[in-house]
Amino acid sequence: MQRFEITILGTGSASPTTKRNPSAQLLNAAERFFLIDCGEGTQMQLRKYKLNMHRIDHILISHLHGDHYLGLLGLLQSMHLLGRKKPLYLFCFPELKEIIDIQNKHSQTVLNYEIIYNYTDPKQPKLLLDDKKLSITSFPLSHRIACCGFMFREKEGGRKIVKEALEKYKVSIAEIHKLRIGQDAINDEGDTIANRLLTKNPDRTRSFAYCSDTCYFEDILPHIANADLLYHESTFLKDMKDRARSTFHSTAEDAATIAQKANVKKLLLGHFSARYEDSSPFLLEARPLFDNTLLALEGEKVKI
Amino acid sequence: MQRFEITILGTGSASPTTKRNPSAQLLNAAERFFLIDCGEGTQMQLRKYKLNMHRIDHILISHLHGDHYLGLLGLLQSMHLLGRKKPLYLFCFPELKEIIDIQNKHSQTVLNYEIIYNYTDPKQPKLLLDDKKLSITSFPLSHRIACCGFMFREKEGGRKIVKEALEKYKVSIAEIHKLRIGQDAINDEGDTIANRLLTKNPDRTRSFAYCSDTCYFEDILPHIANADLLYHESTFLKDMKDRARSTFHSTAEDAATIAQKANVKKLLLGHFSARYEDSSPFLLEARPLFDNTLLALEGEKVKI
Repeated sequence: MQRFEITILGTGSASPTTKRNPSAQLLNAAERFFLIDCGEGTQMQLRKYKLNMHRIDHILISHLHGDHYLGLLGLLQSMHLLGRKKPLYLFCFPELKEIIDIQNKHSQTVLNYEIIYNYTDPKQPKLLLDDKKLSITSFPLSHRIACCGFMFREKEGGRKIVKEALEKYKVSIAEIHKLRIGQDAINDEGDTIANRLLTKNPDRTRSFAYCSDTCYFEDILPHIANADLLYHESTFLKDMKDRARSTFHSTAEDAATIAQKANVKKLLLGHFSARYEDSSPFLLEARPLFDNTLLALEGEKVKI
Repeated sequence: MQRFEITILGTGSASPTTKRNPSAQLLNAAERFFLIDCGEGTQMQLRKYKLNMHRIDHILISHLHGDHYLGLLGLLQSMHLLGRKKPLYLFCFPELKEIIDIQNKHSQTVLNYEIIYNYTDPKQPKLLLDDKKLSITSFPLSHRIACCGFMFREKEGGRKIVKEALEKYKVSIAEIHKLRIGQDAINDEGDTIANRLLTKNPDRTRSFAYCSDTCYFEDILPHIANADLLYHESTFLKDMKDRARSTFHSTAEDAATIAQKANVKKLLLGHFSARYEDSSPFLLEARPLFDNTLLALEGEKVKI
């Protein structure tokens, strides 16, 4: 089965600490790399965990609070300095283009590669990418400023060919296309061989929903329903519920309630406020409401 | 003697590595803290080395290449989030204000404190700060884009009072002002006591010159002459002399030659290109030309 996993690069919130960097995650979807948010220091985190920045062709920025994008300029400029030529796809609000352009203008930098912008919509869901293998949709979250979550869904591939069976039944490679789409094959001797003898069911498809930053917001449920993994911010514990409300953030209980109502399979918590040195209370608060909960840990890979 | 020392926060050049952060140094001048350049991750470096960001009231940015300022927005926003109220003095080119303003606008951030801008001049020296204890002057360097160096000079204080002598000669505290400016004192019994019996010479004044980024550029000599410490970039070794010339950077030999011609007391090298994993060859190349040379090491304090 092809890889579908994220690497956590940052677990902190607005102010980084010595233990927690600002938000960033790298999704590896069948060896295509998607960087989701890019807080200050993300390029250093990529180096630290030996993740090759040149393999990233898509970057998605949820919103324009500094802890989610301030590492972007440095990463773009390092890609340039280190010789990138291929285009980079950037999914973000249009204001980020202004921020990038003015800085490249004042540093007199003309990037060696093209940035292809694809703007997210703060008001409604938008299909950002849709190809044979994957779709990505952005959808509005509820935060102090415009903010989007992202849903990544694998697409079902064709039926899987059983190589040994092709040999056994003397079926040539020319028949593979028919087999993939479910048809029977004709073998070298002119006999019809049933598809079920030559193929297996396609790999199950997986999905990943990324929600940061947001207050408790049930409007997102249809967009993240049944996700295999939901990353949902939990900046505060319930002792700070009022602060969570006033800053448009969530508590661990909020995140767990959303996970439960959206019927996701697994919940990943992150974006912890700097006031909590120890993250384990987040788990203790979430698990009674949603058992299959994990804490984001920097450098860790989470298989989906 | 009051402290006059720098802490090195970054020693790398354009692309940070796992071992070298981009440029930043913190000058402690008698418990006033001046941050000089602020590459990406500077706020994390301050935390790592337990340097209190709230004590920084002055920030100086040499130029608008990312490795010298991309950490500024995050630092300004953290100061805001952590409750700063007192004004912050920012010495930079006016274009940096545009970069800060557009980002605060799009994140809908209104800082709790005032930034007081004082613009450097890319064409000629400019006195940036001048008070009883210190002066700071910016002066043009020669780089691909406009870039300034900075010269920090302590001012001579008054004569130093010898506390024990005051007691011995029965001189009251009311006489201190006269003693400081070199006059004799009248003691409690009406006798004149010679200044030399009650005071010592003032502390010697110290100076620090910061030069990054620049090619070999003799025009800076009058501005940095006789500095106690000169920080001069040395991005390359002499094997890359052509590359140094074409990118408007210096080699270790260039920096040592400038140190020698400016008759400084000590030279500090930094801004090492990522291609050199080991920094010691920089020292080997510089010392034959200027013996009192040090390598910048992150986290280290250099007393001036």
